[in-house]
Order: sequence, then C-alpha cells, then structure tokens
Amino acid sequence: MRLINTALLFLLLLILSCNALGLKPQLLGRHTVQTNSQHTSVSYKTFYFDQQIDHFGFLENGTFKQRYLLNNQHWHREGGPILFYTGNEGDITWFCNNTGFMWDAAEELGALLVFAEHRYYGESMPFGEESYSNAKYLNYLTSEQALADFAVLIKALKKTLPGAQKSSVIAIGGSYGGMLAAWLRMKYPNEVVGALAASAPIWQFIVPCGEFYKVVTHDFTISGTNCSSNIRRSWAAIDRVSATGEGLQWLSQEFGLCNPLKTPDEVYGFKAWLQETWVNLAMVDYPYEANFLQPLPAWPVMVVCKNLYFNTSVSDQQLLSGISQAVRVYYNYTGDAVCLNTSQTATGNLGFLGWFYQSCTEMVMPMCTDGVADMFEPQPWNFQAFSDECYNQFGVRPREDWAEIVYGGRNISAHSNIIFSNGNLDPWMSGGVTRSLSESLVAIMIDRGAHHLDLRYNSEFDPESVIKTRALEVSYFKQWIKQAATTQ
Amino acid sequence: MRLINTALLFLLLLILSCNALGLKPQLLGRHTVQTNSQHTSVSYKTFYFDQQIDHFGFLENGTFKQRYLLNNQHWHREGGPILFYTGNEGDITWFCNNTGFMWDAAEELGALLVFAEHRYYGESMPFGEESYSNAKYLNYLTSEQALADFAVLIKALKKTLPGAQKSSVIAIGGSYGGMLAAWLRMKYPNEVVGALAASAPIWQFIVPCGEFYKVVTHDFTISGTNCSSNIRRSWAAIDRVSATGEGLQWLSQEFGLCNPLKTPDEVYGFKAWLQETWVNLAMVDYPYEANFLQPLPAWPVMVVCKNLYFNTSVSDQQLLSGISQAVRVYYNYTGDAVCLNTSQTATGNLGFLGWFYQSCTEMVMPMCTDGVADMFEPQPWNFQAFSDECYNQFGVRPREDWAEIVYGGRNISAHSNIIFSNGNLDPWMSGGVTRSLSESLVAIMIDRGAHHLDLRYNSEFDPESVIKTRALEVSYFKQWIKQAATTQ
Repeated sequence: MRLINTALLFLLLLILSCNALGLKPQLLGRHTVQTNSQHTSVSYKTFYFDQQIDHFGFLENGTFKQRYLLNNQHWHREGGPILFYTGNEGDITWFCNNTGFMWDAAEELGALLVFAEHRYYGESMPFGEESYSNAKYLNYLTSEQALADFAVLIKALKKTLPGAQKSSVIAIGGSYGGMLAAWLRMKYPNEVVGALAASAPIWQFIVPCGEFYKVVTHDFTISGTNCSSNIRRSWAAIDRVSATGEGLQWLSQEFGLCNPLKTPDEVYGFKAWLQETWVNLAMVDYPYEANFLQPLPAWPVMVVCKNLYFNTSVSDQQLLSGISQAVRVYYNYTGDAVCLNTSQTATGNLGFLGWFYQSCTEMVMPMCTDGVADMFEPQPWNFQAFSDECYNQFGVRPREDWAEIVYGGRNISAHSNIIFSNGNLDPWMSGGVTRSLSESLVAIMIDRGAHHLDLRYNSEFDPESVIKTRALEVSYFKQWIKQAATTQ
Repeated sequence: MRLINTALLFLLLLILSCNALGLKPQLLGRHTVQTNSQHTSVSYKTFYFDQQIDHFGFLENGTFKQRYLLNNQHWHREGGPILFYTGNEGDITWFCNNTGFMWDAAEELGALLVFAEHRYYGESMPFGEESYSNAKYLNYLTSEQALADFAVLIKALKKTLPGAQKSSVIAIGGSYGGMLAAWLRMKYPNEVVGALAASAPIWQFIVPCGEFYKVVTHDFTISGTNCSSNIRRSWAAIDRVSATGEGLQWLSQEFGLCNPLKTPDEVYGFKAWLQETWVNLAMVDYPYEANFLQPLPAWPVMVVCKNLYFNTSVSDQQLLSGISQAVRVYYNYTGDAVCLNTSQTATGNLGFLGWFYQSCTEMVMPMCTDGVADMFEPQPWNFQAFSDECYNQFGVRPREDWAEIVYGGRNISAHSNIIFSNGNLDPWMSGGVTRSLSESLVAIMIDRGAHHLDLRYNSEFDPESVIKTRALEVSYFKQWIKQAATTQ
C-alpha cells in the first residue's frame, strides 16, 4: 500500500493545485468542465499543437494534439514576456483556472499567458483513448518527453505568434509542474530565460526516505499539545480494538464508515486512509478558510489537533473517538457528509494512473516511516517490492538512479535563473531546494506556508510572507527579462 | 549523391581523427586491430559497462556492453582529474590511439584517461550483430542516448573507482565527438566540470548551407594562383570531354582509373569523388608531412595547386591533366598506387552506415554549392529529397529543427566552461563557434590550422599557434578543476 501511497500523494498535489470546488475525475479523452471557485472566470483560447509522440527516437514518427491555452489580454506585443505554465499530471484547464499568481503577474508584466498540457493528461493523449491501454503506448510518458514538448511548443509559438519573436519566456509551475519548470530552464535555457519552481521537490529522489513524514509530523506537533503523539499512539489502539469482531464494528460506527470494516485485512487499508488524511491536512494547512478537495477551516491542522489534546491516560476508545472527530474536520467540515468513505482518495482516475506510471519508471521517490521521528507506523522503503509492484502493474521497472543523473541531483550550481519557493509547513519541502545555491538559483521559504501558496491568487487574507514572496518573484522575472534583452 | 556526401564527409572526420597508418573498415561486432603510427603504443585496459539500451523509455529494459578504455599511469588519485573522451562515430581504440593531446595532458595534470565508445560503433552494439539489421534496432542510435551513456558511465566510474570520488571530469572530443563533449557539459553539467570541443560544428545545422564549401574553396584560393578557379572550370570541361565515348576513355586513362568510365551516369560519381577529394584535402591541410587516410606532403593543398596554376587559355585536356596530377597528390604521394579507385571514400563500413543514419534523423546539416562563392557545381540543398532518401534507406525521416531546439542553436550563453577550438583552414569551422560567447564559453582559432590539430600529439613540427592553443586549453582545465574544488 505504501508503494501506491507515494503515487497517491502526488495525485493530491495535483488535486490541491486545482483549487476546484468539486474534483471531477478525468475521463480518458473527454473534456472535463471546470469551475473557478473564488474568482471571476478566467478567459482563454484553447489550441492544439501537433507534437511528436517520440522526440528521442525516429521510428515512431506519429504526432498527437497537445492542448495549450492562451490569454493575451494583458500582453504588450513586441517584447512583452510570456509566462509559460509547464503543465503537470492533470487537466491543464485546472491549472489555468487555479494558478492565480500568473494572472495577477500578467497584468503587472504585460505578459502573454500560456498553459501547456502535459502529455498523457487531460486531452493531450498520444494514442487517444488507447493511450493507457498497454505498455507500448505508455512508453512515451516521461518527463524528458514532456520537457521536449514544452521546448518545441515555445519555439513554435515564438516563431508563429505575431509579436512574440522578441519575447522572453519564463517557465512557471507548481509541485511536479514546478520540477518541470526548473528542469526546462536547466535543459533548455535557450527556450526560457528563467523559471519559478514552486513547491518543487526536485531532490525527493535523493533525500533520506523519512524526511517527508517528519515534516507532516512536525506540523501536527506544533499545532497542539499531544497532537502528534496521540496520532502515533492511535495505530496500536486501532490494532487492539480491531482484533475482535465487536471492536471492528465499534470502529466502523465511531468513524461513520460508509463500508464497515469486516476483516483485519481491511484495517490495513483503513490505517493507510488515515495516514493519507494527515498528510493531506499538512499540505493544505493554509492560514485562511479554503476549499480544495474538501472545504476546510483556517489552519485546519490546529482545528484537528483540538480533538487530540488529551494525555496518555485515556482509553483506546477515547483516543480513537478523538481521531474520529479529527478526521471529520477534513471530511465533514460542512456537516454534509452522510458517512466517511475510506476509498475516497484512491480515485482510479487518469491523473492517478499516469503519475503511478511515472513513479514506476523515473520519478522514484523513496518514502519511509519509523514511528520515532514521525507519528506513523514503521515502514521501511523497499525498492525491490516497489519494483515488483510496478512490473505487475505496467510491465516496467523503475530506475532508481536515473532522475539524479539526468536532473543533476544536488550538483546543479552550473545552472541559473531559477526560483525555488517552498512553504515550511509543506511536507514536499523535504525534497525541495530550501537554501539559495548561487545568486541566480534562489530559494525562498514562505514562513508558515503550505503547498505552493505563492501560485494562488492574491487574497485579502494572504499573510505577509506570501505577499513578499510574490513581489520578490516578479522582481526576479523583471531582472531576467532585462538581462535577456541586453544579451540578445 | 550530395545527400550521401554529407554523411561521407563526416565519415572522413572520423577517419581523419584516427591518424592510423591503414584504415581498416569496421566489421560488425568484430575487433579491429589498431596501429599507432607515430608514437610508441599507448597502453590501456579495456572494460565493458552494462548500459541501458533505452534511457528515455522503460519498456525496452535491456542492456548492452559499452566499451571503454582506461589508462591510469599518470593519475594522482584522490583529486586528480579525469579526462573523458566522448567517443564519436567509430571504434574507440582509434580515438584512444590517436588523440595524443590527452596523453600529453594527462602527464601534466596527473589525470586518469577514459575513452568511452559511442553506442552503435566499434564493439558497443546494443543488439550485437543485429544492431544495424532493421529500423527497430537502430532506433536507439541518437546523440541524446549517447550523452546519457556517457553521463551514466561517469557517475558509475566516480562511484566505483577507488580514488575517483573527488575527481573532476573534463569532457574532450573532436569533430562529432567535440559536439558531444560540448553537449555533455550543456546537458549534464553535474557530471563534467567543463569540455573541450575541438573542431565541433555545433551550428552546422543552422548556418547557411553554402558556408562549408566556401571555406574549402578559400583554402584553394589562397594556396596558389588560379587554383580554385581552375577547379571551378574543371566540371564543365569534364562534361564536354565525357560527352563522347572517346573522351570517356581519355578521361579514364588520364586519371588512371581502376574502373574506366563507361556511361555519362558514371561521370556524376566521378565528379562527386573529385569534390570529396578537394574537401578532404582542405581538412587535412596540415603544415607538416602527415599520414592519414593517405600519406601527404606538408601543406598538401599548396602542392595540389602547383598543378593548377595555368590561366584560362588552356584546353579542356590540359586543364584535366592538371586536375589529374593534382588528385594524385592525395591518392598517390608515395607513388605506389597502381590505379585510382573512385569508390575509395565510399566505404560501406559501419561508421558510415551509423553516421548516415544519424544524419538521416537528427544530425541534419544542410550543404549546398552555387559555383560562384565556391568552386563546385551548383547544387541547392533539398530537404525533401534528402528526407525521401532517408526514408528509402532506413524507414525514418529527418527532423530538421530538432537539433537546434535540443542543443540550443546560437542561444547557448547560459552554459559555461566550454572551449571551442577551430582551425581557420578547416571547412568544419563554418559550423563552429569561432567567437567567445562569454568568459567561460571560449573560442580559440588556430591560425592556419586544419581539422582538430590541437587534439594530436605534440610534434616538433607544430606551429606556434597550436602550441599556444594546447597550453591555453590545459590552463582552462586547471581553472575548471580549481573552481570545482572550491564549490564542492
């Protein structure tokens, strides 16, 4: 299960990036209607670009339609820059509708906005509805191919869009999209003058496997007395209570589960679901009420922890009742939930499958827990088991060293003009660049920030830290644009 | 024919890099015995590294044995650098035996020498003897795959070779190997601290198609009165003379052809052979007697031109007699040739096939002549015809814009620590970087230098320009090594 969890976590990054009222599972090749919850609808035109299916081989010479979205309402032609969103593992309209920072920045910079969809997601399917049907068709789902798509598209846009020839292009992305933005600058500095990589865990491949869950735990530790220690104690309590049929029944009722637990095997899944819930909460621990995958109060982890303040003297049932109340903050803040569905995050949608494939090939991010430095049950990282799982699922095996070689690992100081922004509450900062590496490889830490808060629209509730971050980011953009103008 | 000529020219780059007494065609999967003509035999150990066949896809998970050669006789372990030859389109032992500069520099730098073979050449065959048997097996013959091979090999060597962990790696290559050295630094700066790209025409994809032949012509123009203009006149003279059966016979006898010309169609091939001869001469126009593909005198173009000084009043026969004497400088300097073989440069060996495939996919270098700015018959660049030829031969079509996108075209100033050396007599300098782009993207022009003269062994006959060039190159190496030591 942990093996899949890694993929699920990244799916959540996608979902969280979306800020959509309701998450609609993507359907292969179909259009997903989007809503924009907080702001007036953004307007854009949709285009499709004939992209090579295989940039790195010539036998497969077919093309597919890569979707991209354009908005030029603020664009100052003949020199106005292009802000280019490097789409991640999902429908590009989600990112377009929910990366408000770009829309705000476009106005200030007189910029053209481009949102490019990542191959194998949304509508950009190399083999149409068959794209996920077998290992042969999936073979072109890699980050290198996606980066090549972006580079080729940028080249074509600059060549064909009237007024774009002299425009500097800046890559912007969040989460995996942020990794792609950084890598695009690293691999194709000819196409982009700089990149904003927001909450981009480019070192998640190589950091110790326990770092991610340590950050999750820390968020709970600082958000309430005994909070993380009571979650740590809950796993054994669940085991004890669920050891009997009576206990299983009690647990199911206490949590109001839509599908009551019937066997001890199902308890494993129940615990995995809880674990993911805590992770999700850490990622969306925003300082204001917000509406992501679930509607949540301001500082949701603190609200959760209010249900978990008690000390070690309570009974298993009392402890688990507190846990039950705590998860309801996440799953039933509105009070509308009839029951809790433990398969809720395990959607079988396309974004999930695609990212699972990517994590089964090159995006290998080792994760582990020890129950000491973190509040979870001990689970070591087992590459071989992960590899076997991938082989069973897709017929491919991950290459654990490749990402470090191709994307440079910690040795990236030869590159330039990349901003790495991270929130110090975001578990993904564990794999992020949190210290500046040079004058032009700049790390920005957003104090008490969750997952790529800086990419969201300006809000009256924004803390000072993110307001400053966005201003600094735009000032770097201006610097890069100026620099490019003088070297051309 | 021109279509193939582009490939043939590059084959010659390979051959010229070799400095071997006799060129032995490579045989698929067989070992080619090498000789070292001028110096005592270099000694090295041969190793084979298990390399992924496909770095950019995961369905093909097979590996092949990549050959590499090692010499550590001068290496200062624990910090001594590694000079890494990025093998080009040929047997790596050729390069090892004939890149004397690296052997000379190793002594000065206390360096380990590594010569890595390029996939699909020499013994490094991804599918053994079947590697060239079909388009599917050839699909992994790309420069990107080769660069990934080098990066993975360097990573492995630094990890496993005792004493290499702290060693800075410098990429070195000539011609296509020089392009690979530059690109390795550009794409994998984490693996190499800098690169020497000797006579590397990284812009041959985008310079005007006539530039190459202009340089060839210029070499002949400056090497003797009326020299290039008489060569320019020779094509029409050949047409006139060969219009009759008698004329064909005279021509065949005058040139001492092994296979007399029988039809006007064969005259086309005869002229192509002459054209290649002039190109070859320009490339090897070294200031001292040397022994490459053919033994040659010092300044061979000047010697050639001594046969072509006459003015426009001479008859066609007189002109062609001069041409005949001129080509014998190239083909019969020793006087041992019984007859001249017009298919001599059109070897069907592996290097040729491999490079032809590469030029038919991503290494698209447009070439053309107009008979005015150059001394050749007018022949425009025809991409479509070239593409069709490639499709007929290999079932693939070239992508004319890809190389510029993936390797940056003229916009490479974001990179660092690359030396581009060129000789101003070398036709390939037409696609080279001949002006410094920044403090660390340095161009060195070798006055009156031919094709990557700087990579050859020190010689008592070296002109001052190449002595200075080599010293400057080594001083940059030292600077990069020092720089890397301070940033680690």
